[in-house]
Amino acid sequence: MSKIFSFSLIPCKTLLQTRASVTVQETENVTDFRTKVSRNPKMERLRCNYLFPEISAREAQHLKKYPNAEVISLGIGDTTEPLPDTVASSMADVSFAILLTEKLVGFQFNTVQMQELRRQISETLYKDMGIKDTEVFVSDGAQCDISRLQLLFGANMSIAVQDPTFPAYVDSGVIIGQTGDVEKESGSYQKIEYMTCGPQNSFFPDLSKTARTDIIFFCNPNNPTGHAASRQQLERLVQFAQENGSIIVYDAAYAVYITEGRPRSIYEIPGARKVAIEVSSFSKIAGFTGVRLGWTVVPEELLYSNGFPVIKDFNRIVCTCFNGASRIAQAGGLAALSPEGFKAVLSLADYYKENAEILLETFRLLGLRAYGGINAPYLWVHFPGSNSWDVFNEILEKTHIITVPGSGFGPAGKEFIRVTAFGHREKILEASKRLRRLLS
Amino acid sequence: MSKIFSFSLIPCKTLLQTRASVTVQETENVTDFRTKVSRNPKMERLRCNYLFPEISAREAQHLKKYPNAEVISLGIGDTTEPLPDTVASSMADVSFAILLTEKLVGFQFNTVQMQELRRQISETLYKDMGIKDTEVFVSDGAQCDISRLQLLFGANMSIAVQDPTFPAYVDSGVIIGQTGDVEKESGSYQKIEYMTCGPQNSFFPDLSKTARTDIIFFCNPNNPTGHAASRQQLERLVQFAQENGSIIVYDAAYAVYITEGRPRSIYEIPGARKVAIEVSSFSKIAGFTGVRLGWTVVPEELLYSNGFPVIKDFNRIVCTCFNGASRIAQAGGLAALSPEGFKAVLSLADYYKENAEILLETFRLLGLRAYGGINAPYLWVHFPGSNSWDVFNEILEKTHIITVPGSGFGPAGKEFIRVTAFGHREKILEASKRLRRLLS
Repeated sequence: MSKIFSFSLIPCKTLLQTRASVTVQETENVTDFRTKVSRNPKMERLRCNYLFPEISAREAQHLKKYPNAEVISLGIGDTTEPLPDTVASSMADVSFAILLTEKLVGFQFNTVQMQELRRQISETLYKDMGIKDTEVFVSDGAQCDISRLQLLFGANMSIAVQDPTFPAYVDSGVIIGQTGDVEKESGSYQKIEYMTCGPQNSFFPDLSKTARTDIIFFCNPNNPTGHAASRQQLERLVQFAQENGSIIVYDAAYAVYITEGRPRSIYEIPGARKVAIEVSSFSKIAGFTGVRLGWTVVPEELLYSNGFPVIKDFNRIVCTCFNGASRIAQAGGLAALSPEGFKAVLSLADYYKENAEILLETFRLLGLRAYGGINAPYLWVHFPGSNSWDVFNEILEKTHIITVPGSGFGPAGKEFIRVTAFGHREKILEASKRLRRLLS
Repeated sequence: MSKIFSFSLIPCKTLLQTRASVTVQETENVTDFRTKVSRNPKMERLRCNYLFPEISAREAQHLKKYPNAEVISLGIGDTTEPLPDTVASSMADVSFAILLTEKLVGFQFNTVQMQELRRQISETLYKDMGIKDTEVFVSDGAQCDISRLQLLFGANMSIAVQDPTFPAYVDSGVIIGQTGDVEKESGSYQKIEYMTCGPQNSFFPDLSKTARTDIIFFCNPNNPTGHAASRQQLERLVQFAQENGSIIVYDAAYAVYITEGRPRSIYEIPGARKVAIEVSSFSKIAGFTGVRLGWTVVPEELLYSNGFPVIKDFNRIVCTCFNGASRIAQAGGLAALSPEGFKAVLSLADYYKENAEILLETFRLLGLRAYGGINAPYLWVHFPGSNSWDVFNEILEKTHIITVPGSGFGPAGKEFIRVTAFGHREKILEASKRLRRLLS
C-alpha cells in the first residue's frame, strides 16, 4: 500500500490561506485604518484551522480539479438518513402550534429549559443512575456545551485529553487560555496532558503514567478511534479522578452506538456523581445534526475544593451565555425519547453500524488494520509509517472519497485516518468498491 | 407616590439562596468528598444572580403568598403574540421536509451557516450599507453571540458599557476576566468604564468624559431605557471609536422598533465598517424568543492593531464553539425576511408600541416620568429617591404586576424600573387599570 502515499503535506500557512478564501472573501479595498485593539494572544496560539472546515476547503479544491467527480464523503460525522417520522412530525406540530397558541410563545425563563425534556432525559437515559431532572441542562449540542464548560472552568485549569480525540476540547482550552504554545514538531500544546490511546494499549490510556490534572476530557466511545471503554476501564478512570480530586468531562455523544454491554453513561460507575460531568447530544443518536439539541449533566454532589457546587456556576453560565435550545428542537428531542421514537433511534444506529461492518471488511481485504466500528460509527484505519494528510490526499485523488486525517485529532493520530460510517448504504457500497479497486 | 416604597431590600445572600432553591434542588445526602479543583475566581466575582431568573424566583415567592393572584408580567422582554403565519408554517414545512428529503439532513459544514439566510439578511436589512453575506454570521441569539465575542476578545480587553444597559455585557466580561472586583457601595465593577445615560444627558453618554477602552458595548435602542440614538449621536460615537482606535459592539436587537427616522444599523454611519461589529436578533423583531435565531455582522475592514482581520478570528470561534443555529429556526428567519413576512414583523412591532403608548399614558397619569416606549418596546420609569428593588417589590405586592428593577441594569438604574410593552392588549389594559388604582 505504501506506493499510494506520495503527496507532500500542505504547509500550515497554505491551509490558512485556503480556508480564508472559502469562508471570508478578501476585501478589495486596501484600507490603512487599524484599530488600536490588540489581537487576543490566545487566538493567535490556535494551530491553523479548525479541522472540518479545512477538509471542506480541500474538497472544494478537489471539485475544481475534477468538476465531474462523484465525491463520497466519509469525512465529517454527519448523519445522512431522515429523522424518524415521529420526531420530524413532532417538530412540525410545534411549529404550527406556535402559530396558534400563545402558551407556546416566549423564552419560558422561569425554567430556562423545557422541564419536560429534562425529566424525560433523566428518566429515559439515566434510569436507576440517580440523575435528577434538575441536574440535566438542555443545550444546542455537545460542542457548544464544551465551550461553555471551558468558560466555567477558566484559564487556570490544567487539562488532560485522550490522544487522539475530538479537537474541540483542546481548541476551546487554547482559546480560554489553559495551554501554552504549540510545539511545532509534535503539534501538541504545552501544559496539556495528552493521554495516548492506540493499538499498543487497546485504546485506553495508561493512567499510571498520566499526570494529575484538574479536568480530564474523556470521549467515550472515542471519536475518532471508535473505541468504547469497558466497565472495568471506566471504574479505573473514576478511581483515578477520585484519587486526584479531578473532574471528568465525559463526552457521551456516541453512547447510543454501544451494544457490547459496556456502559453508556459514566454514571453507571459508582462514585461518578462526585467527579464527573456528562456531555451528550441528540445529533448522532437521532440524526439531529443541524437541528441542534444536546444536554449536559452536572450532579449536585460535584464540588469544588472549597465545597461550592459546580452545578450552581454552570447554571449561571447557562443563564448568562445561553438562552436555551430552540423549543422546536426540544419538541423533536421529546419525540426521540418516546418509546416509539427511541426504537427508531436505535434502528438508525444499527443501520450505520451495518455500514461500519461493510467498511471494516473492506479495509481488512486491503490488508489494513481498522479499529472501532463496533460500538461507534467511526473506523480508525492504520497506515503505519505514513502521514495522515498524505493518506487523505491520496485517497481523495484516487477514489474521490473524503476521509479525515488522523493528525487532526492529536499527535497520536498521525498514521491514521478516520472513516465515518454515516452514509446511505449505496454510497458506502460504492466507496467500498472504489477502495477495493485500489488493490487490483 | 413615595408612600408605596416601604419594603426593605433583600440582601444579596438571600437572593442567592432563593435562586438556588428554584433551579437547583439541594442534595439531601451529605457528602464529604470534594474535588481538588479550585472554583474559577472569575465566577466568584459575579454579583449575585443573573437578573431574570432572580425575578422569576420572586414571582414564585409571590405566588406562594397569593396563590390566586393573577400576575401580569411586564418584566422580561418576552414576546407574547403568535409568530406571523408565514414564519411558523415555513418552520413546519422544513420539519416535514427533513423527514422526506435527504438533502435537508446534516450539519452542512461547507457553509457552516445557511448561505441563503446570510444573503437575505445582508440584502434585506443592510441594503445600501455594503454588508456582504460573508460578513453575516447566523447565531442562536444576540446574548449567545455576545458571549462568543467576549471569548474572542479575551481577558485583556478594556470595556465600556452604557449605564444602564443589558447585563450580559458586564456579566460576560466578568466571566472572561476583563473586570476587577465589584464595588459594594455602587454595585459597579472595577476596570469597567460606565457611560452614564439618564434624563440629564438625554440618555446619550458624554463622550468627552469617557475614557478610551478597547471595546465599547452600545445597545441601541437601549435596553432598558428605550432610547434610540439620533444620527448625529451615532456619528459622534463612530468618530469617538475612530479617534481611540476602539471597537464598538453595537447591539441592535430592538432596531425594528425604531420609527422616528433614526438609524437602525450602525452601518448607516460612514466609517462604521472599520470600527463596529453589529449583533442582532430575530427574537424581538419576529416574536422569535424561544425559537433562537440571531446574527452578528463582522466587516472585513475591521482590523486589530497588527492588521489581522477580526472576522477571521470570529469565524474560528464560530467553528470551534458553535455549530450553527437550528435549521428549522433558520427557515423561520428566511420567512420573516420575505416581503410578506417582514410586513407582518413590522405590524407586530406596531402592536407592541401601541401597548407602550397605553403604558406611557398610565405613568403620566400617575405623575411619574416614563422614558422610552417610542422607538423601543421598553419604558424606563423614574422613581426619584427610591430604590428600584423596593419599587419592584411594592408594585408586585400591590398590583400583582412584575416589572424589572433598574439596578439590575447598572448603578445608574437604581431609581428606575423597566416596564415591557410586550403583552396581550387586554393584559396591558388590565395592568394600566391596576396601576391607576394605586392613585385613587
